[in-house]
Amino acid sequence: MRPGKSDRGGETRELILVTAERLFAEHGVEAVSNRQVSEAAGQSNNFAVGYHFGSKEDLVVAIVRRHAESVERRRTDMLAKITDSPDLRDWVSCLVRSNTEHLASLGSPSWYARFIAQVTTHPSLRELVINEAVSSPSMQQTIDGMFRLVPRLPEEVRQERSYMSRLMIVHMCAERERELHAGTAMPRSTWASTAAGLVDALVGLWLAPVTARR
Amino acid sequence: MRPGKSDRGGETRELILVTAERLFAEHGVEAVSNRQVSEAAGQSNNFAVGYHFGSKEDLVVAIVRRHAESVERRRTDMLAKITDSPDLRDWVSCLVRSNTEHLASLGSPSWYARFIAQVTTHPSLRELVINEAVSSPSMQQTIDGMFRLVPRLPEEVRQERSYMSRLMIVHMCAERERELHAGTAMPRSTWASTAAGLVDALVGLWLAPVTARR
Repeated sequence: MRPGKSDRGGETRELILVTAERLFAEHGVEAVSNRQVSEAAGQSNNFAVGYHFGSKEDLVVAIVRRHAESVERRRTDMLAKITDSPDLRDWVSCLVRSNTEHLASLGSPSWYARFIAQVTTHPSLRELVINEAVSSPSMQQTIDGMFRLVPRLPEEVRQERSYMSRLMIVHMCAERERELHAGTAMPRSTWASTAAGLVDALVGLWLAPVTARR
Repeated sequence: MRPGKSDRGGETRELILVTAERLFAEHGVEAVSNRQVSEAAGQSNNFAVGYHFGSKEDLVVAIVRRHAESVERRRTDMLAKITDSPDLRDWVSCLVRSNTEHLASLGSPSWYARFIAQVTTHPSLRELVINEAVSSPSMQQTIDGMFRLVPRLPEEVRQERSYMSRLMIVHMCAERERELHAGTAMPRSTWASTAAGLVDALVGLWLAPVTARR
C-alpha cells in the first residue's frame, strides 16, 4: 500500500530530524543552516525545515523530543525499582543510566550524545534543552530523591554541582559516542562502563565537603 | 615616534588574535571563517589571517599561546609555594587557580574561557589545545603531584577522571565568564569562589571510590 499524504509528511519530518541531528553533531548548530539541512535530507524545497518545523530552535526541540520518550520510559522504570532507596548511588545511577541505556539502544553510529553536547554549549539553545529536561516529572523525582540523600548544601553550591553533573554526563557520553564511531574505543569501553564511571564520579562530587568561600 | 614596519605587523597580529578569540567564543570556531576574522579586525586584505598565521589551526594555537605564558607563570609560582605538600587539595588548587587567576586578571569582558570551551568541544582542534597544555612542564609537575596523593586507580578510570576534571574546569570557567559578561553573576560570584567550588568538587571526584566495572 502506498503511504498516504500524511504518512509521507511524517517520513519527511523524520528524515529531516535524523539529518539535522547528524549535521549539528558533526559541525555545531551554528555552522549548519536550515537550507543545508533541507538539502542534505534530499528535499527539493530548500524551505522544508521551515515548513515542517519552523525555526532552528523548533527543530532542535523536536530532535530532543524524538528521544525524550525513550529516556523518560527508562527513568520511570528505574524509579519504580528503587522506590525510596536510602542509597544515593541508586538515584545517581537512575540519572545517568536513563541516558546511557537510551544511547546504547541507538547502536553505532549514533549522533544524539554529540548533538546534545553541541546544543548545551550553545549560548541560547542551551536553555531550551535544559528546560525540556527539567520539566519532566520523572527527572524532578530523580533530583528530589538525590537531594534527600545529599548533605545540606548552600544554594549556590547546589546549583554549581547540578551544573557540573550535567556537564559530566553530557560530555562523557559525547566522548564515548565519538570513540565508538571512530572505532577508537577500548574493547571494554561500553556504555555500561561509561555509566559506572560517571556514577562513581558523581557520587564523589555530591558528597565532597564544602570549604568556606572567599 | 612612528612605529616601524615590524611593530605594525605585531599590532596587526595582536588585533587579529583578539578579534578571532572573541568571534570564536561567541559563534564557535567552525562558524567563523578566516575572511570574517580579517574583516572584523579591520584588515583591508581578506587574507590577513592566512598571511600572519597560516591556517585556522595555527590561529587557534597562537591564541592559546598568547595566554599560556601568564598561566604558566602563575602555576610555577604556586608550585614553588606548595613544594611537596601532602595535601591533595593544594595540587588541585594549583591546577584550578592558575587558570581562574589568569582569567580574573583579564577583567570583564573576557572571551578566553568561552573560546577554550568552544575549541575543546571541537572534534579536531581539541587535540591541539590539549597537547599544548599537557606539554607544559609545570602542568606535568602538577599532575604528577596530584597522582601521588590519589589512591591507586585503574588506568581507564584515571584517564576518565582526567577528562572529567578538564571538562569541569573548562566549562565552569566559561559559564562564569558568560555570567560576568551578561551581568547575571550573583554579587558573591567571583573567580575566587568559582575556584573554591571547583577545588572541592575535583577533590571529591578524585577520591571517590571505584566500584567494579561491568
